[in-house]
This record gives sequence, structure tokens and C-alpha cells, in this order.
Amino acid sequence: MAVRALVFDVFGTLVDWRTSVVRDLERFGVTRGIACDWTAFVDAWRDAYVPAMDRVRRGQSVWKNLDALHGESFDVLAQRFALPPLDATDRTWFVRRWHELEPWPDVRTGLERLRRRKLLGTLSNGNVALLVDLARFGDLRFDLVYSSEIPRRYKPDPQTYLGVVELLALNPHEVMLVAAHNGDLEAAAGCGLRTAFVARPTEYGPAQKKDLVPGAGIDVAVRSLGELADYFEA
Amino acid sequence: MAVRALVFDVFGTLVDWRTSVVRDLERFGVTRGIACDWTAFVDAWRDAYVPAMDRVRRGQSVWKNLDALHGESFDVLAQRFALPPLDATDRTWFVRRWHELEPWPDVRTGLERLRRRKLLGTLSNGNVALLVDLARFGDLRFDLVYSSEIPRRYKPDPQTYLGVVELLALNPHEVMLVAAHNGDLEAAAGCGLRTAFVARPTEYGPAQKKDLVPGAGIDVAVRSLGELADYFEA
Repeated sequence: MAVRALVFDVFGTLVDWRTSVVRDLERFGVTRGIACDWTAFVDAWRDAYVPAMDRVRRGQSVWKNLDALHGESFDVLAQRFALPPLDATDRTWFVRRWHELEPWPDVRTGLERLRRRKLLGTLSNGNVALLVDLARFGDLRFDLVYSSEIPRRYKPDPQTYLGVVELLALNPHEVMLVAAHNGDLEAAAGCGLRTAFVARPTEYGPAQKKDLVPGAGIDVAVRSLGELADYFEA
Repeated sequence: MAVRALVFDVFGTLVDWRTSVVRDLERFGVTRGIACDWTAFVDAWRDAYVPAMDRVRRGQSVWKNLDALHGESFDVLAQRFALPPLDATDRTWFVRRWHELEPWPDVRTGLERLRRRKLLGTLSNGNVALLVDLARFGDLRFDLVYSSEIPRRYKPDPQTYLGVVELLALNPHEVMLVAAHNGDLEAAAGCGLRTAFVARPTEYGPAQKKDLVPGAGIDVAVRSLGELADYFEA
């Protein structure tokens, strides 16, 4: 049966979070005269994401959305990197950097082509307000913004994959997850979804070691959303 | 504090369900040679909506989304209007008529103007798949498709109004409900949302008696989304 809907992982798959956040924090450092290895800061901030979600997943924390987790990990890192005291407005500005991330160059036009043939949704661990801001910032058009915040379960919990399938009133094999991360794709495949791997070999910087090639059992592997559109238009 | 997001009731407020469904069913009748007062059929179908939702609201029925309720009431009306036997494909086609409704003439360009200044979302008792189809059918661009199906509570349950406010990470008074129905607007105001009444004096046909004028306490009253855009651009 044909694929009717594509649901997209967002961080790394559609947007280049690392370049965007590093650029913004470097500008902040210059303006405020704060010396810091901002690239290391951003990498550490992103690294804090998995353990923070794991605490929620394991029930060691009540539900907290990604903005809340970003705020908490920012506080820890501001200490570790010995930033000078920052007020609440600054903290909000830092957390909001994750709402204004540049899409990879192929994304806007790729989505536009794909949307002519398929329903398009997000399926992200980012919270809804964050995803809405990202879509507006990058002028990305989705039919449905779906987030882990809706079932209050983080990917790779099956309720996230099956939750968006249910709201679209489709069968799992009519929905394809598009992601740059093999772990996410494997979990989706385990729920019966189809899978498309899109290579983002510099998501984690020039020395990236993981997710350079698709894992076993991926349905489609591409290097851009344009290639994915080619696949469906062929 | 300023309005940051507009959330829209959909049936009647944005789309002319009556003209659209009557037109489709009349064509069906001609093609199949089935005589029926299709306008009466559609009015009865829409009338069945409130008691069907009330059974869910009162807990006399498990959660059923609007497509399911439309299917059940179709079965009752097919008998009452003595339609000839129809197969499952026909039944699906009938229920799907509610996914392909013409927007009122001011809606597409009105939303486009409003979206330059505000976040736009749906807040409808229609299920998500239905709303996604309607938005695609009418080329209506929303930042967020929100539905009663997400909290599994039908409007006017406060969880619907407060649910979309929470996902947008806003305060209730930063969100305005735009609707053609005073009951919906009163319930939203009771949750602290702002309210805009848009007059749709022929939603229920030429003899419409209710919701011709805004109720007391409405923040803004307009006759089109163009007028609402004028209000925010002034």
C-alpha cells in the first residue's frame, strides 16, 4: 500500500541546529564581551538532551517539555562554563535560540515538492510552540505539527509514532518517518511505519562519526529532501 | 497584553459546510438516480451533531471522533430518508464530504493577511485528519492544527480552549478565538481567551435565526476575516 503521509524528525533532519545556535551565541558573546568556547557550549547543551529526556522517560521526572529541559540544562552549563550572571530575559533568549534554527538548504523547496503528493507532518521531541516557531522562521509548510508533547512521551516511545498515525487516521505502513538518525528510524519501523534516511553528515560538526550511513532495513536512503521528492515523483 | 495567536472555529466560521455538502449530495443523487430532499438531509445530518457530541460529553459513549459520529448519524438518516442500500465505499464517500468544504470567499486571503502578524491555529470539534484535509482542500495555511480529538473533549469543554493555549505556551488572554457562534465564544471568554465574532448569517441557510449578531462581551465583531485583518493592521 502506498505511502500517504511523511512525518519528519526536525532537529538535525530539517534544521542545522549546531551552526545556528553557535552563530547566535558567538554574537551574544561579542556584544556582551563574554569569552567562551561557544561551540563547546552548544555541543554540551545538545549532549544534555538525551539524559534529560531519559529522566522523564524513566519516570524520574514529571513531564517536562523540551523548552523546560533546555532551560534546566542551560543553568547547569552556565555554571560549568563560568558565564557571568545572566538575568531572566537573557535566559529566555538563550532557550529561544532553539526556536530559530536555519533549515538545511534543500528543506524548504523539498517540502514544497513533497507536499504536492503527500501529507506532511512533524514528529519531533521539540514542543509544539518551538516547532511552530521553527516552521515560521524557516517558512516551512506542514499539514500537521505533531510533537512528543501531545502524548507526553518522548521518542522513541511507540506512543509517539502510533499517536501521529492515529490522528492522521492512517495505517502505520501508510506513514513514512523521514529522519537523519537510525535509532529513530528503527523505532518507527518497529511500529510498522516506513522509513527514509536522509544523510546529514555534518549535523554534529565536521568530525561526526554516527549516522553517516543508513542502518539495515531502511526503505529509502537519500542525501536531501530533493532526492526524496525525486523518489516519489519517479 | 497583546493578542499573539488566533484560533479559529472551522465549521461555519471558515467553511460553508451546508452549500458544499448539499451540492455534493445533489450530484450523487443525479448520478445514481436517487430522489431525496438533499438539503433536508444535510440539515438533519448537521442537527445530529450536537446530541451525538453530548452523548460523548456526558460519558454515555466512549470517545468517538467527528468522522465516527458523522458515520453513525449517516446510518440513521439513510434509513429515515429511505435511501436505497449503499455499500461501504459509498458510506465512506458520504462521510468524507465533510473533509471537502469550500471556505467562505474572504477566508484564504484573510488568513494570509492575519498570519503575517499572528500565529494561526484551528480549534475545532472536527478530528485532525478531517481538519488536515479541509486545510489542503481550501489551501488554508495554519501554524497549528488543533482539535478536540487531542484532549478527547468536545468544545465547549474548557480543556479544549486551555489545551491549545498551553501548547502554544501562551497565556489565555494572548489567544483570541475567532468564531461565528456565540456559545463557543462565551465558553472561550470564560477560560480567559479574547473573542472575535465573525458574522456568517447564511451558515444555516437563508432563514437562519441564531448567531446573527454578536453576544454581549465580545471583544471584536466583524463580517469577514478581511475586516479582522484590518482591525489588527490599524
